[in-house]
Amino acid sequence: MAIGAEALREECGVFGIFGHPDAARLAVLGLHALQHRGQEGAGVCAADAAGLRVHRGLGLVREVFGGREVESLTGTAAIGHVRYSTWGGNSIANVQPLMARVRDAEVAVSHNGNFVNAGALRAELAQRGSLFAGTADTELVLHLMALSGGSSLVNRLIEAMYQLQGAASLLVLSADRLIALRDPHGFRPLVLGRLGEAWVVASETCALDLVGAQLEREIEPGELLVIDASGAESVRPFPPVQRQACVFEHIYFARPDSEVFGRSVYAVRRTLGRVLAEEHPADADVVVPVPDSGVPAALGYAERSGLPMHFGLLRSHYKGRTFIEPDQASRDLGVKLKLSPVRSVLEGRRVVVVDDSLVRGTTSQKIVAMLRSAGAREVHLRISAPPTIASCHYGVDTPTREELIAHRLELPAIRAFLGADSLGYLSPAGLRAVQGDDAGRYCEACFTGRYPVRPGADPADAQLRLFRST
Amino acid sequence: MAIGAEALREECGVFGIFGHPDAARLAVLGLHALQHRGQEGAGVCAADAAGLRVHRGLGLVREVFGGREVESLTGTAAIGHVRYSTWGGNSIANVQPLMARVRDAEVAVSHNGNFVNAGALRAELAQRGSLFAGTADTELVLHLMALSGGSSLVNRLIEAMYQLQGAASLLVLSADRLIALRDPHGFRPLVLGRLGEAWVVASETCALDLVGAQLEREIEPGELLVIDASGAESVRPFPPVQRQACVFEHIYFARPDSEVFGRSVYAVRRTLGRVLAEEHPADADVVVPVPDSGVPAALGYAERSGLPMHFGLLRSHYKGRTFIEPDQASRDLGVKLKLSPVRSVLEGRRVVVVDDSLVRGTTSQKIVAMLRSAGAREVHLRISAPPTIASCHYGVDTPTREELIAHRLELPAIRAFLGADSLGYLSPAGLRAVQGDDAGRYCEACFTGRYPVRPGADPADAQLRLFRST
Amino acid sequence: MAIGAEALREECGVFGIFGHPDAARLAVLGLHALQHRGQEGAGVCAADAAGLRVHRGLGLVREVFGGREVESLTGTAAIGHVRYSTWGGNSIANVQPLMARVRDAEVAVSHNGNFVNAGALRAELAQRGSLFAGTADTELVLHLMALSGGSSLVNRLIEAMYQLQGAASLLVLSADRLIALRDPHGFRPLVLGRLGEAWVVASETCALDLVGAQLEREIEPGELLVIDASGAESVRPFPPVQRQACVFEHIYFARPDSEVFGRSVYAVRRTLGRVLAEEHPADADVVVPVPDSGVPAALGYAERSGLPMHFGLLRSHYKGRTFIEPDQASRDLGVKLKLSPVRSVLEGRRVVVVDDSLVRGTTSQKIVAMLRSAGAREVHLRISAPPTIASCHYGVDTPTREELIAHRLELPAIRAFLGADSLGYLSPAGLRAVQGDDAGRYCEACFTGRYPVRPGADPADAQLRLFRST
Amino acid sequence: MAIGAEALREECGVFGIFGHPDAARLAVLGLHALQHRGQEGAGVCAADAAGLRVHRGLGLVREVFGGREVESLTGTAAIGHVRYSTWGGNSIANVQPLMARVRDAEVAVSHNGNFVNAGALRAELAQRGSLFAGTADTELVLHLMALSGGSSLVNRLIEAMYQLQGAASLLVLSADRLIALRDPHGFRPLVLGRLGEAWVVASETCALDLVGAQLEREIEPGELLVIDASGAESVRPFPPVQRQACVFEHIYFARPDSEVFGRSVYAVRRTLGRVLAEEHPADADVVVPVPDSGVPAALGYAERSGLPMHFGLLRSHYKGRTFIEPDQASRDLGVKLKLSPVRSVLEGRRVVVVDDSLVRGTTSQKIVAMLRSAGAREVHLRISAPPTIASCHYGVDTPTREELIAHRLELPAIRAFLGADSLGYLSPAGLRAVQGDDAGRYCEACFTGRYPVRPGADPADAQLRLFRST
Repeated sequence: MAIGAEALREECGVFGIFGHPDAARLAVLGLHALQHRGQEGAGVCAADAAGLRVHRGLGLVREVFGGREVESLTGTAAIGHVRYSTWGGNSIANVQPLMARVRDAEVAVSHNGNFVNAGALRAELAQRGSLFAGTADTELVLHLMALSGGSSLVNRLIEAMYQLQGAASLLVLSADRLIALRDPHGFRPLVLGRLGEAWVVASETCALDLVGAQLEREIEPGELLVIDASGAESVRPFPPVQRQACVFEHIYFARPDSEVFGRSVYAVRRTLGRVLAEEHPADADVVVPVPDSGVPAALGYAERSGLPMHFGLLRSHYKGRTFIEPDQASRDLGVKLKLSPVRSVLEGRRVVVVDDSLVRGTTSQKIVAMLRSAGAREVHLRISAPPTIASCHYGVDTPTREELIAHRLELPAIRAFLGADSLGYLSPAGLRAVQGDDAGRYCEACFTGRYPVRPGADPADAQLRLFRST
Repeated sequence: MAIGAEALREECGVFGIFGHPDAARLAVLGLHALQHRGQEGAGVCAADAAGLRVHRGLGLVREVFGGREVESLTGTAAIGHVRYSTWGGNSIANVQPLMARVRDAEVAVSHNGNFVNAGALRAELAQRGSLFAGTADTELVLHLMALSGGSSLVNRLIEAMYQLQGAASLLVLSADRLIALRDPHGFRPLVLGRLGEAWVVASETCALDLVGAQLEREIEPGELLVIDASGAESVRPFPPVQRQACVFEHIYFARPDSEVFGRSVYAVRRTLGRVLAEEHPADADVVVPVPDSGVPAALGYAERSGLPMHFGLLRSHYKGRTFIEPDQASRDLGVKLKLSPVRSVLEGRRVVVVDDSLVRGTTSQKIVAMLRSAGAREVHLRISAPPTIASCHYGVDTPTREELIAHRLELPAIRAFLGADSLGYLSPAGLRAVQGDDAGRYCEACFTGRYPVRPGADPADAQLRLFRST
Repeated sequence: MAIGAEALREECGVFGIFGHPDAARLAVLGLHALQHRGQEGAGVCAADAAGLRVHRGLGLVREVFGGREVESLTGTAAIGHVRYSTWGGNSIANVQPLMARVRDAEVAVSHNGNFVNAGALRAELAQRGSLFAGTADTELVLHLMALSGGSSLVNRLIEAMYQLQGAASLLVLSADRLIALRDPHGFRPLVLGRLGEAWVVASETCALDLVGAQLEREIEPGELLVIDASGAESVRPFPPVQRQACVFEHIYFARPDSEVFGRSVYAVRRTLGRVLAEEHPADADVVVPVPDSGVPAALGYAERSGLPMHFGLLRSHYKGRTFIEPDQASRDLGVKLKLSPVRSVLEGRRVVVVDDSLVRGTTSQKIVAMLRSAGAREVHLRISAPPTIASCHYGVDTPTREELIAHRLELPAIRAFLGADSLGYLSPAGLRAVQGDDAGRYCEACFTGRYPVRPGADPADAQLRLFRST
Repeated sequence: MAIGAEALREECGVFGIFGHPDAARLAVLGLHALQHRGQEGAGVCAADAAGLRVHRGLGLVREVFGGREVESLTGTAAIGHVRYSTWGGNSIANVQPLMARVRDAEVAVSHNGNFVNAGALRAELAQRGSLFAGTADTELVLHLMALSGGSSLVNRLIEAMYQLQGAASLLVLSADRLIALRDPHGFRPLVLGRLGEAWVVASETCALDLVGAQLEREIEPGELLVIDASGAESVRPFPPVQRQACVFEHIYFARPDSEVFGRSVYAVRRTLGRVLAEEHPADADVVVPVPDSGVPAALGYAERSGLPMHFGLLRSHYKGRTFIEPDQASRDLGVKLKLSPVRSVLEGRRVVVVDDSLVRGTTSQKIVAMLRSAGAREVHLRISAPPTIASCHYGVDTPTREELIAHRLELPAIRAFLGADSLGYLSPAGLRAVQGDDAGRYCEACFTGRYPVRPGADPADAQLRLFRST
């Protein structure tokens, strides 16, 4: 499913490190491991007693840090960020880490998530005289910290977060400390690791692995961890609420080699495929994954069904551009530049295609047609997740509800639109079976339309609990 | 004098246009004509009812707008800016026009000048919760407008300016109007022109000339001109004070083909040279200007003295870079890349060299040595301005007072340092003679150390006069 | 195996099209599909009656043709080329298509292959006064054509080829024709297709697929096909010899979705894996491919052995750079940037790792260590090809014989060097079993050290057969 | 006159150095000083015993060598080149120094000049089997050297030059020597200097000055100087002919601070202006030069006429681009971006405008109109050279004869076309008066249409005199 405009897109990935002489270089490496979480902008801010230094740019990590940029980012602490953003004349204003002077301190922020009350708060702050440079939610964190009467950077951050609702895996860097924070629902992942004496925080464990750090534990939902020269201190300033981990991290976003929300992503996906095979068997000859994200579920499907799995669709790893599109070329060139069918696998076969999700359906339609034109006799589409019927408010770039095929159409109509011989989605019950004891602790708003945090709710009815550092 | 690090540097140039279908393109052209006022960054912001669009970058106008950037800047109004700034990791944050959302309106600002109370105001605003992204004074204008209770954009701007002290030739652009403002002392120039039905404002008349606009008049000191679809309305919200036009615009900054503060720059410089010849004649064979800025004064000197003028120093117009400097090369390579002596003019001659100013003296020292090594028998240095003994607070990038040779040394010691056979500066009385009726209406703080507006003075003791648009 | 410096590298891919209004754009697309055959340089030359136009550059196809370059390549015929080359100050001189003026005609050449007598011929031609601009063998073709007394471009090409020994899948473009030629042994692949009325030639069928062309047939070994406005005419000017198709195209180079030498690459690789499982079974828990090239053989191995296959190694598709390597990082960072282990697959398991070849062995050593550090209990390495003991002279960039681990060491020592629990290569007999009727018609010099064409042999003892076009 | 497409353009400048540890860096500096001789491409080739290394590119010297390119050009000898060329897809093929392998030696060539028999020779060599990569005459030198039976590089060069007719100031670099050669007529300049122990050759003395070298003497017409580790040896292999130094080097091409053909360029131009004033006085108020090239002649004119000179036209040194041209802008924008009138000098005055040449006349027409629109009451155009009526065959990029206004029109018609009140050219007799004893030793084909070397003449009737090095 992860093909071009069709894909749901994670908004961001974050990485932080404290207490290492090579902080900025390791942050670049860490962002490289998180590249799948955001490919349109990257940045690293490094700090030491002399202040903060930042480099940001539009593009992949290797493009933004393709030269000697990192050399000027001296310091023993750093935070980084990869993001999606819509391109624009000045969209660089939205590339993180964002930096500002809060009172007399330089502060940088990297944020993965979205606030549901961002619009209202921006309007209110603007009314009071705050200037906004860009359009990112993250700017709100800085403004609210600046306006806070809190007695320290940490307390200003806590006060700020009490006014914000939604998803935040957030890193804050100042000249002498690194703060990591996860919102009380814990929508987005954030893990803590150690690299020798240094502390590392990252969206996924794969970033710890690449820099050679050992996983310590998840940063807990609602936890705020203050790391400075004297060590790491954990605070829980927010009243506890039900955990709402994003189910799509397991289904599609996270890298298969990561452990997310305490579970192996690869293992979860494979199990999803096994349950899918139980729920929706097919009378077919071969299981074909939509690469790369559909592979583990396809393997699970093949195992459980007893059908052989083969790579009937090959993914190109040299991205092409649409401007070379010849006028006479077919409309399917976009998909053909990324996927190509393997005729020897497909010809004359009844094929089960396994993908992880179905968003607008337009790419899947082209894939079904591509399989048939390469000789597939039947095409049975299996999706290792329930139908996506609602948009995300917590940091995933979903189309509007109206664009979601499963919102617009009933199952038979979807199958007909796709041109598949059969279509099967994983059931909500099947998903819960895979989640086991954790069932109920995931945000599944995109499957249910029930949002755990809605704009308008007031999270601040709880008493503000500030931080008392010894 | 205008050689590299030696030169005084104008901080900025501004250009605005309202009511033209090609607004952004003409703004780029206008900035091109003002390129001498700032070569390190350029930007244009265009507006129409749909909003504001900006493109900014580090480098010359032709580099920043070297491609198709201007094509996306649609709209019938635009403001632009060229600037000096120190290069840095994120110095792009200081390139103007600055943009922000002030209340519910997008606003862009281009500013030529400096505020003397900027530091104190920034600290005070930060204390109240304002975030600062960059280090430019201009950001203060936006913050003060955002915090103002004024009933309109114009009134917010007036309120903001009542709190700021110093020099401002300022353009403000919103979706439906262009505001031009000059501070009450009128330190920096700003002129108004017409291009058909369109209105044009610019730092110098040479920008009007290039876009084909006709000069209407100066924007007066203390005047605020509001241009919108219904026409241009002039307001004078500030109490009148003595005019303090920057004398260095005439001596060095402005282009010779401009008319600045109502006088031809070329004519003023030529007259300075004539008076200089009267005050400091020399028993010599030839007058040689330091090109390009010393040429008109040298011509005047030659006319009055009866000596022939020749181009004994040639200026290269292909800028070199220091990184190609061979290890074995002389220390004077920097100057030699820009100036070369013409032996046939100099050999065996007694030479009067005419320059417009003397700042640190290091470049002039090299020029004197260069002339001698090319055969000059005597070198008599003549400066068409009084000694520069104090730094500027109003928008000119001067060295600290301690670096100014005329602050550190007496005349004989300067002459000895430079290695010249004689040295003569224009006298203050001579300068006044050239100014005629306008004498006393110029800021000459750099020659006198007497600053017309000092940090700490409170300009706001006058009553705030807001704008009532019909 | 296809990891960085460890990999054998195909030298080139070629693409040509004749009789299409979008010739150059389709050539760029075709090269994109052939990107795996050469990633260091790309070029396209287009032609019409007005002459030839070329654009070439260093980098990937999407980098070389990242802008509007293709727009200037007007014409209805085009040839293109992707290549490897060592970077250097003027290595652009080696990027193809090469162009020259041969007598009074502009000619461009794209070449996949290597000539074994290139060195001697260059020396001889230089002695006679020919100038060489670069170091590519391909330049020889142009020089020999220029020196030929042949009565036409085709006859000059035939004369030239009579003097050259080795591998050549070659395209020649002039203002009015496209010539495709394959050397008599047919070392490197070349296929012919149709796109409506247009003719297409390409190294692999995947390039036909992407541009929407239908496969007609292979260009035969020794065939020379002349395509012009009147159609395509096939000539066989060379005496027939035994076919010597490169066995490594099937094992590793070609894309799995291509049909090469008349067989599905995917199917061949899967069968190699099946035979490998028969020859070298393992008492293990899971089969893990080295992605991407080891996947089909691993699938075959899993099928035949009955063991489950899992993706215990994940390949990153965002290439990193070594300059971001922190000083403190491990030496294995290069491999870690490309491959990451999936702990949930590996932990506690006995793992069969399947790869397609073993060259120096250094990368495989790191992979074995990576698997163990992620928890693998045993690591059994299986290679779906015989040991590589000799270098290639026909267009593959192999290390010297001394660097090949299977040349230096016996099997037990290789296993010990790699740190694997067991090691098994496909046997030559197993390879022949997969080849079936075609056994003996492949060049397997890299496995045997027996070269079908050696430097010094004189191919021209046969009579020169020129082309008589009607 | 030196305004855009209107200008005659020197084809090239060359620089060479032998025996200096910083050879390539000094070559870059030297090319920088020669930038006025060619602004579209630059290159440097450095040599030592290990071989030759080259870097070339399109653009200004500072653009081609804007990074660390020079660092890889190690060696103690180097040659460089700046050139004009028409932009094209592969015009980089024409940027010099050209390199090739001649027999077993790497050789690089930099050439200023043109051969009149280039076309015929190219055809002949192509017929014999030589391949041509680009279109530059210089490639012929390499081909002829390669084909020569000469016993050494020097003798091959001499043989080559015996077959070439026309203009050549030529540098040849091999691993161990630098050869400088000037054709027997000495059309283009070439001087020899010393920098400590190192030898320097350059098109103009200004390049010697910038690198700190002392002028030794001109390389004589017909001289071939071989510089190697044992010193410099001069040979005169060609039969003597009448010197034909390009008169336009004095009139317009060379830098005023250079000494060319033994005379100060500045002094020659000033004297041309004096004689012009005698021949064509004007009843006027002020003399205005067309900057920059018209300045010395204007000074001479002012001196002799007793009229004051003023800078009524200001030249911009920030080049603009035409793509920013607004649709509504006047057609004169191209000229206005480069020149602006100074109203205070021109208003109400009768103006003598002095320029150095008149080619097509279109720019001068715009200048006359610009002066009038800025208030000039009368405009009298004076040209410090005779009418240009014929194209150059020896290395100057002139329009075709049909485009030259003085070929097409009589004097009164030219005056009318330009819109000037009067027009005066320097007479041929006046030019000879300035040349003094050297009169008759200049090529003045562009003024007379009489070409000293015509295509078809056979220079090789003289006996070939080879070089015998001891």
